[in-house]
Amino acid sequence: MAKELKSLTNREDNYSQWYNDLVMKAGLAENSAVRGCMVIKPYGYAIWEKMQRALDDMFKETGHENAYFPLFIPKSFFSKEASHVEGFAKECAVVTHYRLKNNPDGEGVVVDPDAKLEEELIVRPTSETIIWNTYKNWIKSYRDLPILCNQWANVVRWEMRTRLFLRTAEFLWQEGHTAHETRQEAIEETERMVGVYKVFAEQWMAVPVIVGHKSANERFAGAEDTLTIEALMQDGKALQSGTSHFLGQNFAKAFDVQFANRDGKLEHVWATSWGVSTRLMGALIMAHSDNNGLVLPPKLAPIQVVMIPIYKGEEELKSVSERFNNIASQLKALGVSVKVDARDHIRSGFKFAEYELKGVPIRLAMGPRDMTNGTIEIARRDTLQKETIPQDGIVEHIVKLLDEIQDNIFNKALDFRAEKTTKVDTFAEFKQVLDDKGGFILAHWDGTSETEEQIKSETKATIRCIPIDAVEEDGVCVYSGKPSKMRVLFARSY
Amino acid sequence: MAKELKSLTNREDNYSQWYNDLVMKAGLAENSAVRGCMVIKPYGYAIWEKMQRALDDMFKETGHENAYFPLFIPKSFFSKEASHVEGFAKECAVVTHYRLKNNPDGEGVVVDPDAKLEEELIVRPTSETIIWNTYKNWIKSYRDLPILCNQWANVVRWEMRTRLFLRTAEFLWQEGHTAHETRQEAIEETERMVGVYKVFAEQWMAVPVIVGHKSANERFAGAEDTLTIEALMQDGKALQSGTSHFLGQNFAKAFDVQFANRDGKLEHVWATSWGVSTRLMGALIMAHSDNNGLVLPPKLAPIQVVMIPIYKGEEELKSVSERFNNIASQLKALGVSVKVDARDHIRSGFKFAEYELKGVPIRLAMGPRDMTNGTIEIARRDTLQKETIPQDGIVEHIVKLLDEIQDNIFNKALDFRAEKTTKVDTFAEFKQVLDDKGGFILAHWDGTSETEEQIKSETKATIRCIPIDAVEEDGVCVYSGKPSKMRVLFARSY
Repeated sequence: MAKELKSLTNREDNYSQWYNDLVMKAGLAENSAVRGCMVIKPYGYAIWEKMQRALDDMFKETGHENAYFPLFIPKSFFSKEASHVEGFAKECAVVTHYRLKNNPDGEGVVVDPDAKLEEELIVRPTSETIIWNTYKNWIKSYRDLPILCNQWANVVRWEMRTRLFLRTAEFLWQEGHTAHETRQEAIEETERMVGVYKVFAEQWMAVPVIVGHKSANERFAGAEDTLTIEALMQDGKALQSGTSHFLGQNFAKAFDVQFANRDGKLEHVWATSWGVSTRLMGALIMAHSDNNGLVLPPKLAPIQVVMIPIYKGEEELKSVSERFNNIASQLKALGVSVKVDARDHIRSGFKFAEYELKGVPIRLAMGPRDMTNGTIEIARRDTLQKETIPQDGIVEHIVKLLDEIQDNIFNKALDFRAEKTTKVDTFAEFKQVLDDKGGFILAHWDGTSETEEQIKSETKATIRCIPIDAVEEDGVCVYSGKPSKMRVLFARSY
Repeated sequence: MAKELKSLTNREDNYSQWYNDLVMKAGLAENSAVRGCMVIKPYGYAIWEKMQRALDDMFKETGHENAYFPLFIPKSFFSKEASHVEGFAKECAVVTHYRLKNNPDGEGVVVDPDAKLEEELIVRPTSETIIWNTYKNWIKSYRDLPILCNQWANVVRWEMRTRLFLRTAEFLWQEGHTAHETRQEAIEETERMVGVYKVFAEQWMAVPVIVGHKSANERFAGAEDTLTIEALMQDGKALQSGTSHFLGQNFAKAFDVQFANRDGKLEHVWATSWGVSTRLMGALIMAHSDNNGLVLPPKLAPIQVVMIPIYKGEEELKSVSERFNNIASQLKALGVSVKVDARDHIRSGFKFAEYELKGVPIRLAMGPRDMTNGTIEIARRDTLQKETIPQDGIVEHIVKLLDEIQDNIFNKALDFRAEKTTKVDTFAEFKQVLDDKGGFILAHWDGTSETEEQIKSETKATIRCIPIDAVEEDGVCVYSGKPSKMRVLFARSY
């Protein structure tokens, strides 16, 4: 393990290798024997559970209920919404048979050709089709609306180039699917949920995000409008971290879901869907971590405070541990998660490095001299600063410090983003900033898909979003020179 | 909806139809468009979430961590453990392709024959194989042990005859997979987890269970020993509600997982696995419910107390609601989940029936006369008793009553089981009790698979378990007349 710690690649040398090393060595995830599918290891999953809990509470506070819909979707369902099939049904896992049998020609088992399905089943890449086919039976009248369901589930998209958390064939996510009486109510829901995502990203993950509309090119397949939260990673690339779609009446029409409105007339139902996934783990890791390992915001850290006794012999260990256990139980009573690491066969220097790698926000160390002096050594993961302070008042100090670290990590990311956000007015400048500095670029755009495509093919940058708080400003498109009313947000992205 | 309420089939007329009606009409689950796959509706999922939370807390208290392993398992993995492939790989969903394309001959999409997988993937029916293939890389020395992982996941078994919750092609479950240094430690883990299941079944679900060993015939495919909790349903049939397997070194040998032990020698790792599923929902429903609908134990009820104002006009509604909201906020502060149903377009009689159907443990009703008299009507779902009591002290009364209802539901089920458990000493008596009375039968058995098979084919009853607390007692096998040392538990089962 000591060897492994040393071999974390430098972020500045090879960002992508640094990320992979970190995910593996911090015990977050690893590749599995199945191409493109990952194993989420206990420490990684513990962070995901904290994310789930916080999001789930926010969904429930906004009136949503959880439900569960089938993993499999009949192939024909995808063809019902024209743009949806183009966007999703192509790269997917297809179940064609339901039985294996002993290999008549030798060892092992083979697919039984007699057990072919009449209609193939698709492992869900997203669940709009199966859910709207279900909602059809739930909705008769405006009194049955709104339906505000969320599902926590696994989904599969057959990605050719995968990266742990960021792009995997199977991933975990939540997908909200809501049904409404009016266009306006559905639009409000779309906005409400992207707002929930923004609060979660900023207040829990400590990742500042820009909220905006996707351009037509980047919109969800089947949506009238897609709202997104866009985060900036430390290598200057953007990461789309959550989306909320206004689906209009597209799926209601595709699955013939009508309701009797307040005037007694039949009308198609209005829909939204919204989701975040284990991709957020990638955002969390890439937004804050450094060459020593993970940096976790306290609100999502499975261990918030680690305590390491420094000692020689049983007696010293006993007295230091007693003091630590006392502090630990006071902290636990306040809801702080604590680990006392008194493992005897591992040197404390190694433990320090291990918890740095794992991003534990606060580390305490205490030895015989501290016991004599009534002091304790406290180290912050975010700044790597350490100091020796009195044991008196340590509990209050830690509780305050956890908040301070949460704020500091967010503010650091906010400063980084401000520094890496550039207004440009010419295409030459656009390309230069992208190559030299990276980050977000605010530039005028003529509003056409053609221009967006051209810019993408020449620079690999795309429109991340049209920010919802964009200020109207007369200008000309950096690419075409045509008139533009506002700047949009460009970046290279994951 | 009023019509639907009326049409709940009588339990005594057709138990199986009563069950199906109840699951659908109480809003727990329904069949989906995909054969054998169910939709778990919000009210049903809310109960499952409460189960998950309670179990997850108990798993963590016993030192387990959650993780996540791939949905897909390469076909060849199943062939590595001989009895496992016989038990599981046969009836399963097989992914053979990873792409669809537009139909060249017409409408819709078809499977792209060019996108055939080199090796087919099986949608996991259980995860021993993929997990032990992963553990291989996690375990080098005894210092890496134990590994105590649990996974909450969906699994698929291609069942031909399905029933909501009890037997579905896709179901939700948790599967614990642990790795140990010694045989003894693994056996203790197997016992510890079946013990957790027993506590959960009895203290949360209010369902008494018998813990015991499965006979060789009924053992998990790949296990050396399977422990089970067996519950008795109201129709006299048994329901296997959770199992915990001692896997010996079978999977470690199949996947070559060895560790350096304390003597520095290589040894195969010892394993357990254990799981409960959404089948528990079936047990919960069938153990307690009646012809009015669900009866939920308070600890698992999404709504523990429902409050229904009785009123004419705005003013009466306002004064009753104010009083209800006051009681509700006091209850919420004590962790009681409460719903005030002031819907105006629905008659209160209808509301009473609806919450009875949904199994809400306590119903309060209050009208203008109660406001004058300082009284309130309180009804218990378990006994269907109602009484009018003073509003003073109502909060304390409810908190106490919830505990009382939890205990009463459990004791009722316990009494039912005692009444339906019969010791028999001859095969004639065995068959007669099965047909006339049903329930659990305690009988001597000669310990052979042949006898068990014969009894099963003649009576459809199987050995549910060899109870762990069975008392040694000399006797003769009811079927073969051969000597036997203890009685085992027989029943017809789901």
